[in-house]
Amino acid sequence: MKSVTSRDNPFYKELKHLAGSSQALRKAGRSLLDGVHLCQAYLDLVGQPVHCIVSEGALANPEVAAIVDRVTAPATSLPDALFGALSQVEHGIHLLFLVETPRPVRPDALVQSAVLLDGVQDPGNAGSILRSAGAAGIRQVYCSPGTASCWSPKVLRAAMGAHFVLEIFENVDLADLIRTAQVPVLATSGYASERIYDVDLSRPAAWLLGHEGQGVSDALLNLATHRVVIPHAGAVESLNVAACAAVCFFEQLRQQTTKLQRA
Amino acid sequence: MKSVTSRDNPFYKELKHLAGSSQALRKAGRSLLDGVHLCQAYLDLVGQPVHCIVSEGALANPEVAAIVDRVTAPATSLPDALFGALSQVEHGIHLLFLVETPRPVRPDALVQSAVLLDGVQDPGNAGSILRSAGAAGIRQVYCSPGTASCWSPKVLRAAMGAHFVLEIFENVDLADLIRTAQVPVLATSGYASERIYDVDLSRPAAWLLGHEGQGVSDALLNLATHRVVIPHAGAVESLNVAACAAVCFFEQLRQQTTKLQRA
Repeated sequence: MKSVTSRDNPFYKELKHLAGSSQALRKAGRSLLDGVHLCQAYLDLVGQPVHCIVSEGALANPEVAAIVDRVTAPATSLPDALFGALSQVEHGIHLLFLVETPRPVRPDALVQSAVLLDGVQDPGNAGSILRSAGAAGIRQVYCSPGTASCWSPKVLRAAMGAHFVLEIFENVDLADLIRTAQVPVLATSGYASERIYDVDLSRPAAWLLGHEGQGVSDALLNLATHRVVIPHAGAVESLNVAACAAVCFFEQLRQQTTKLQRA
Repeated sequence: MKSVTSRDNPFYKELKHLAGSSQALRKAGRSLLDGVHLCQAYLDLVGQPVHCIVSEGALANPEVAAIVDRVTAPATSLPDALFGALSQVEHGIHLLFLVETPRPVRPDALVQSAVLLDGVQDPGNAGSILRSAGAAGIRQVYCSPGTASCWSPKVLRAAMGAHFVLEIFENVDLADLIRTAQVPVLATSGYASERIYDVDLSRPAAWLLGHEGQGVSDALLNLATHRVVIPHAGAVESLNVAACAAVCFFEQLRQQTTKLQRA
């Protein structure tokens, strides 16, 4: 492992630039994974990072040491003070992977279960949705241009490694995707009358989820195959979009599993 | 409506003190509701605030004006610059209700469906859980001492008014509550083997949800009637606690509704 101790080191300066600018990271086609859980998930599910960066203090942590041991890619240690400027996580463990942002090849059409995000803005919500999708066995996520940037540190952190089991497509024209879809597209809406429990979810279907305040845009609602609602009880009218997503994805998985058990 | 324009006005100084200190609010037995949605929900579901505070600029907003029109309690307008120091919401609409924090009388025992929060720390998660509970028809929430403060601005904002249809009990000894419970207590755990779909949820049951990282504490897990899991598919091992809560609450509502339809 290399050791860098000067703020003027060119590699450190480049890292600091990338860590401080999501635009610079995007331009470089790279992402930063922060902390033990994300780095471990990356090693388990994807492979080696471009570079492993660790603070001198963190090397004493057995979990960090175990991860660094598995890294065959270039690795650099930094004094804690230099590392601090790279991480957005307060009181975090000082471990970063610089990785190539996956750029999966987009299929010609939507032919499997997927999640379509139409302007979901809160990074915590977007990350929670990716995490639920990954846990429910959904493999593809398509995001409209107005959706939170999926490879930003906050979305990565909230998704807890789900990124590495998903194919994520950003800046997608969702209208075009829905028009050519070969699976039903179910738009969730508090104003819909069809209950999710009355739709056959045992076959592949795509979920269309909208902006926290405004919901799915009218243009896309009109293109969807179904407009569905999670039936409520009581005076609270709506769910958080990530909570709504979890209920939908796991109802789909429940129906799929029940059908398999019956077959 | 009174108009206050001086930073030295005693009422303004008291408000600023309360807005800046959750401890001062707690001591006063009051909460601050920020924004149109929360204030409207409070008027609809509870009644009049102790005091309504609005910025001069916000009075031009028709939604704000409609709410202010419904207020018979004392109301005060402030110049925008003075109001800014009271609100934590960036780019928010300048409307605040100062309200008495509800102090519902705690029942002798747990006899209905409820949510038990054991150290849920993130205010966004706590708020989302309250919102889902309110939407699923659950009426009671019991929080351990280590759980996020439910009447803090972030939890209030995330719950979108669910507070006003719930009875919320904070600083509860959950072990004691579970020992004397007259309904089954279901602890969610990624390590459990009993699937939520295999438990009879058509009758009242309480959900025990744990800390974001560590889950439900072992002591409480051992007291619970059931340890249940949401079956997953794929390599992502766990759900966000608020997503998990939503799946559980709505599975309960689904089973209750299905049973009613069959009866």
